[in-house]
Amino acid sequence: MSALASHLAPHAGVLAALDASLADVARVFDDQLRSPLAPVQNLVEHVERYRGKMLRPMLVLLSGMAAAADRTAASPDQLRTLITRQHLVVAATVEMVHMATLVHDDVLDEADVRRKGLTVNKLHGNEPAVILGDYLIASAYHLCATLPEVGPSRAIGRAAVLTASGELLQLHNRGNLDLSEATYFEIIRGKTAELIATACRLGADASGADESRVLAMTEFGLAIGSAFQIQDDILDLLGDQAVVGKSLGKDIEKGKLTLPVIRYLASRAPEQRAAARERLAPLCSTGASPEHLAAFVRDVVSSGAVASAQATAASLIARAKEQLRTLPASAARDALSSLADAVLERSS
Amino acid sequence: MSALASHLAPHAGVLAALDASLADVARVFDDQLRSPLAPVQNLVEHVERYRGKMLRPMLVLLSGMAAAADRTAASPDQLRTLITRQHLVVAATVEMVHMATLVHDDVLDEADVRRKGLTVNKLHGNEPAVILGDYLIASAYHLCATLPEVGPSRAIGRAAVLTASGELLQLHNRGNLDLSEATYFEIIRGKTAELIATACRLGADASGADESRVLAMTEFGLAIGSAFQIQDDILDLLGDQAVVGKSLGKDIEKGKLTLPVIRYLASRAPEQRAAARERLAPLCSTGASPEHLAAFVRDVVSSGAVASAQATAASLIARAKEQLRTLPASAARDALSSLADAVLERSS
Repeated sequence: MSALASHLAPHAGVLAALDASLADVARVFDDQLRSPLAPVQNLVEHVERYRGKMLRPMLVLLSGMAAAADRTAASPDQLRTLITRQHLVVAATVEMVHMATLVHDDVLDEADVRRKGLTVNKLHGNEPAVILGDYLIASAYHLCATLPEVGPSRAIGRAAVLTASGELLQLHNRGNLDLSEATYFEIIRGKTAELIATACRLGADASGADESRVLAMTEFGLAIGSAFQIQDDILDLLGDQAVVGKSLGKDIEKGKLTLPVIRYLASRAPEQRAAARERLAPLCSTGASPEHLAAFVRDVVSSGAVASAQATAASLIARAKEQLRTLPASAARDALSSLADAVLERSS
Repeated sequence: MSALASHLAPHAGVLAALDASLADVARVFDDQLRSPLAPVQNLVEHVERYRGKMLRPMLVLLSGMAAAADRTAASPDQLRTLITRQHLVVAATVEMVHMATLVHDDVLDEADVRRKGLTVNKLHGNEPAVILGDYLIASAYHLCATLPEVGPSRAIGRAAVLTASGELLQLHNRGNLDLSEATYFEIIRGKTAELIATACRLGADASGADESRVLAMTEFGLAIGSAFQIQDDILDLLGDQAVVGKSLGKDIEKGKLTLPVIRYLASRAPEQRAAARERLAPLCSTGASPEHLAAFVRDVVSSGAVASAQATAASLIARAKEQLRTLPASAARDALSSLADAVLERSS
């Protein structure tokens, strides 16, 4: 059971239906990626181990169950009957698009380790890793286009355009110590929240949910997606290296300003702000002194900027849970609410 | 007029219809890529200059005209009425997928120049270049999925999976001096011919052509696509640097064995083959001696292996032109035949 799924333990019936459907999603996923070419198949089997939290497939399935929960009683067997091939295909597609971005991110970050295994770029070099990412993206679209209707392909294409746009906006602002909160929120909406929102939306849509429910699930996804990224950024700043599996303060080293740092700078009086920027500038490089970085992070924390970012994430989660009121009361809806809470509590 | 289009000069009527439709394709292309984010839009405008031969859009349009030519007389105005929004969208999609592979290839090849301008990776670094490639791929799928039917999205997804598979197979065989002809043909079919075949097939399909015509155009595309790649590989070995715009023998330096080299090695007597391999091995690296490389290429040429590869390309073109007999006689069909010949004659 994944760390996120463990937050669903109180919803045993939903969890049973979800686990069974996630196994179906994994089958659809593996079937799509299988290649008759041995070198391709070897790479595919390596990245299949990257499948981690399966947050996005869980959101497709739970959104599908919750949006149609008034069409069935709440027994686990009946919940699972709400899940159609379209849900499984969309869930596998979204995870595959996400995995492609992980593979490309690892190349760009020159990362050696992903989920306790070596990255493709570390094992085989950058070239196979870039092309493998392209193979995963192409496979995702091919899979989605096996559905009889074009709607899901259109939504996935749009989400992937916005994901790449958000990443390009972030790269453009690398080293920009004047990054505004507005641009930060635009970046995280693009690079993280749009795909998560599309997962929720397409899950509801595949259940034949009406427009108001589909919209509510889209808003739910946008809010938890942004909260998820804020939490990710806080973990990068603070988390225990053993838990998140990567070294800390990497965002600062890469010149990526995140919400706590933006708020820390904004909260300084004008003279102090210039001094804080002068301290920060040399930390925005991979050769930065770990001691100076740690001291800077301590000051960000003691200023209250991390707590303030956490409060913003919490208010996004509260807003997400409000959207759930549009759906009928059900065990699946309660599970979505718990999953939203889990976003705030996760430590990896 | 592009170099390829100049081969169509004898077909003035078709060329006029084609040029008008290519301008429409360029508009669909630019409209899809436009971004409200200034940093994204700047990158997009840079790569739009990469649009070169427009071979793939030309194939979509000409296949569309030729497959339905018995539905109209041959006047240019009437030819153009055969072109629907579906043709334009498919043509722009195929070119966008192709452009994404160029952007990623430039990163992997550490190329500085593309079509006489600087590459994205040279200008902005590898990270924006990889993500820009992802943006182009996502935009291509999003565009294709604006069509009401899912068929073109499915075909494009399949072709992109096969393209990436061919590239991965090629990377896996880098430095493999025992590469067989069979594997070489499998590589070039994947990395080049499948997308070209999909362009031809979807062009005919968008004209409502029957299955036999769609199949004939698919086979036409597979044959000219493979011939195109063989010609590309010969140009890499022999061509004038000023014409092809890149240094020569790069495939050998990268450890990529192409048809002339494979045939040269195969044509040696067993003892000579071992010696030829021993000469070749140290050339498979970027630090190789230009003089030794040039001497090796001279021996490949004088062995007749280049002429043999050219003959294979010519027989593929002949096979492609036979497929055209399935279509009704028309000026558009004649233009496709000239375009097939142009593949052999091109010098860039």
